[in-house]
Amino acid sequence: MTRPRPMSGFPEWLPQQRMIEQQVIDSLRSTFELHGFVPIETRAVEPLDQLLRKGETSKEVYTLRRLQGGEDDEAGPGLGLHFDLTVPFARYVLENAGKLQFPLRRYQIQKAWRGERPQEGRYREFCQADIDVVGQDTLPFHHEAELPLVIGEALSALPIPAVTVHANNRKLAEGFYLGLGVADPAAVLRSVDKLDKVGPAGVRALLIADGLTEQQAEACLALAEIVTDDGSFADRVRALGVKHELLDTGIEELTRVVDTARAHAPGFLVADMRIARGLDYYTSTVYETFLTGHEGLGSICSGGRYDTLASVGNTTYPGVGLSIGVTRILSRLFGQDLLRVSRDVPTCVLVALPDEESRPACNAIAATLRRRGIATEVAPEPVKYGKQIRYADRRGIPYVWFMTAERLGSEAHVADGVRDIRSGEQVPADPETWSPPAADLRPEISAAE
Amino acid sequence: MTRPRPMSGFPEWLPQQRMIEQQVIDSLRSTFELHGFVPIETRAVEPLDQLLRKGETSKEVYTLRRLQGGEDDEAGPGLGLHFDLTVPFARYVLENAGKLQFPLRRYQIQKAWRGERPQEGRYREFCQADIDVVGQDTLPFHHEAELPLVIGEALSALPIPAVTVHANNRKLAEGFYLGLGVADPAAVLRSVDKLDKVGPAGVRALLIADGLTEQQAEACLALAEIVTDDGSFADRVRALGVKHELLDTGIEELTRVVDTARAHAPGFLVADMRIARGLDYYTSTVYETFLTGHEGLGSICSGGRYDTLASVGNTTYPGVGLSIGVTRILSRLFGQDLLRVSRDVPTCVLVALPDEESRPACNAIAATLRRRGIATEVAPEPVKYGKQIRYADRRGIPYVWFMTAERLGSEAHVADGVRDIRSGEQVPADPETWSPPAADLRPEISAAE
Repeated sequence: MTRPRPMSGFPEWLPQQRMIEQQVIDSLRSTFELHGFVPIETRAVEPLDQLLRKGETSKEVYTLRRLQGGEDDEAGPGLGLHFDLTVPFARYVLENAGKLQFPLRRYQIQKAWRGERPQEGRYREFCQADIDVVGQDTLPFHHEAELPLVIGEALSALPIPAVTVHANNRKLAEGFYLGLGVADPAAVLRSVDKLDKVGPAGVRALLIADGLTEQQAEACLALAEIVTDDGSFADRVRALGVKHELLDTGIEELTRVVDTARAHAPGFLVADMRIARGLDYYTSTVYETFLTGHEGLGSICSGGRYDTLASVGNTTYPGVGLSIGVTRILSRLFGQDLLRVSRDVPTCVLVALPDEESRPACNAIAATLRRRGIATEVAPEPVKYGKQIRYADRRGIPYVWFMTAERLGSEAHVADGVRDIRSGEQVPADPETWSPPAADLRPEISAAE
Repeated sequence: MTRPRPMSGFPEWLPQQRMIEQQVIDSLRSTFELHGFVPIETRAVEPLDQLLRKGETSKEVYTLRRLQGGEDDEAGPGLGLHFDLTVPFARYVLENAGKLQFPLRRYQIQKAWRGERPQEGRYREFCQADIDVVGQDTLPFHHEAELPLVIGEALSALPIPAVTVHANNRKLAEGFYLGLGVADPAAVLRSVDKLDKVGPAGVRALLIADGLTEQQAEACLALAEIVTDDGSFADRVRALGVKHELLDTGIEELTRVVDTARAHAPGFLVADMRIARGLDYYTSTVYETFLTGHEGLGSICSGGRYDTLASVGNTTYPGVGLSIGVTRILSRLFGQDLLRVSRDVPTCVLVALPDEESRPACNAIAATLRRRGIATEVAPEPVKYGKQIRYADRRGIPYVWFMTAERLGSEAHVADGVRDIRSGEQVPADPETWSPPAADLRPEISAAE
């Protein structure tokens, strides 16, 4: 077999990177659970017709077939891999509504797949960490102020650069466009959403093509320029002279989101009229999140309030949610070598093996240490101690345990010694009582200096 | 939208079941890491030609296409979802060999997919938890005795029925068949592997169709009947009167595996000559594992030693590994309601909300409790306290926190109270100091009575 090569768009990590990713995911889980979110996991596949319901994404879907499945085997709409966790979650809520408690606070950390052309920040396989709160028929507004704070707490617990959430409100934008006399505010939103890609002149051209006057287009661009880290955005919006009831509601809601965040952690959340979010299903607050110093990467956590994503008969399930792009963040930080782990393996102690006959005795020492929560390996081969120490050193294992000659073949718990191979210092030790310093117990992740 | 229905073969769990699954996976991870295994995760897809290398499985593979991808877009062999974690791991080892440390101890807990007809114990999407030790060019035999002990420790830490590992040795079986004068021992292995499906008479017919004499077929069936929980299998095999050098090696190796396990935990591992494992790549010890009282479910953890699964040029990567069928185990135990979790949400404390104006004060109490590691929610709406208590009760949240009127609008840390809603007992409490009993801090999983 020839040596295989990586596959573009399907990032894979080395074991030490995977240890970092797992600790990141564990930390996110821990924050979400402290806030009372329950975990769910959905299957990787959905019926294709469900995946294509929302338009726009059809080109990105991977479809599935059984290699030996006949035509009749694949009757119906066929299956596709989910491209996000929101569509499967909406389906899950409808399918299990009778067995769930509402409002439902759930988190979901899983892979998703898109057949996009790979580039930095965009992958064909990637991990998302989502939280949503979903109500039955109604959902109180305060959750729209709550969720970005949970995300802020989750992200600030990680050894990554600081983040800023940029929030806007669909009612504010749509009310503004309606107040301007625009016929199709959704079309304007979609055009304004392209601001990053095509710039103000490009958006102006798109808006005029949408049927707006020069003056209307200028007003839309002027709105999109407003960014404030407090409630002062409201005055700046009103200064543009547009009036509409929906605009008033949007300003009031966004003010509550900004004020709540400001009381909690000033500077963490800004009101940003440029945030549009292309997806049709958002109805109120929308969010994007940027990593300080890596703004060019795009949003690393997006979402918003939706009222109509899931409904059966007369029952609707309005919700609000945010989705962290775990792979997008880690891939950037790994690429720039900005994350460290204190060693390459979970192992804290290597028990040196004097000869193959001593393996049972060494296994017993290892078992005792493990029972006490200390990750331990026994050396794979009874080679020279220098080589066994190098085995530990190459992996960053901090301690090597030596079973002394006196112990061999006896039951005496005497004269074992453990060496910190970083300092070379060796002390007598008993596996029933010796513990490493807390900082050495497990691999620790940190930002690179 | 109509209410969606579950999809056969793609099991999904309710949140409380997912909490159990996550704790099971966390516990497996913890045991694997205590033994120094590093985590890896591989992409869900592999080139189709790699997936089909080993034959036999072609009918089970799901192939992928991009919905809008043209023919040229999918040039080459195409992609399929992996059907186990061994083939992707072998590819990962070859791809990253220059960056990995050997012997490599790795674990991998991921979904896999097979397009099989769904039935109990067989799913189209399922979670596997694998451990393998892989060497470069050589791998010491003792790992074949070590790995079932790690698996035993991992499974016995879970609230599931006891397990028994059944081990055999390919060299023993092949040596026996060669000693009998059989021309194609691999064909005999494949026929004997069907013992559970077709019974002894069926296997005898298969063996005779393979070209064996009646006497040879009887000897193969007599071998397959030997099961012992100690080294006495060796005498019973030798009593069949067959002689071959490879048989001697196999007996010696299996004796080491059985003796090591017996010294560690008597009764946990048996030598079972019936275990064949159909896959071509096993070369020495093979394992299957059964859940006591659920033997009909089939093996819940299988694997073995392989010498030739991965090689590039003159370098080979021999290994030994076992794979736990997490979905197979949980699906059976959930189906028979044999696992419990102490509550349906992570939340330990619900902070009752007297009125919407008090939300910031209630949020502050919740934030203090969370900082101290106590999972806390604030009630979603300021409805009557009875209704708020029912919100907690329906989810199994054990404590409700009441902020007293005196505190409202003041900074005084007095007169808050926390009620254990199971007993109704309420005590004064300060969020800076109050802690629940350890058993209430997190949801705990247990076997049902």
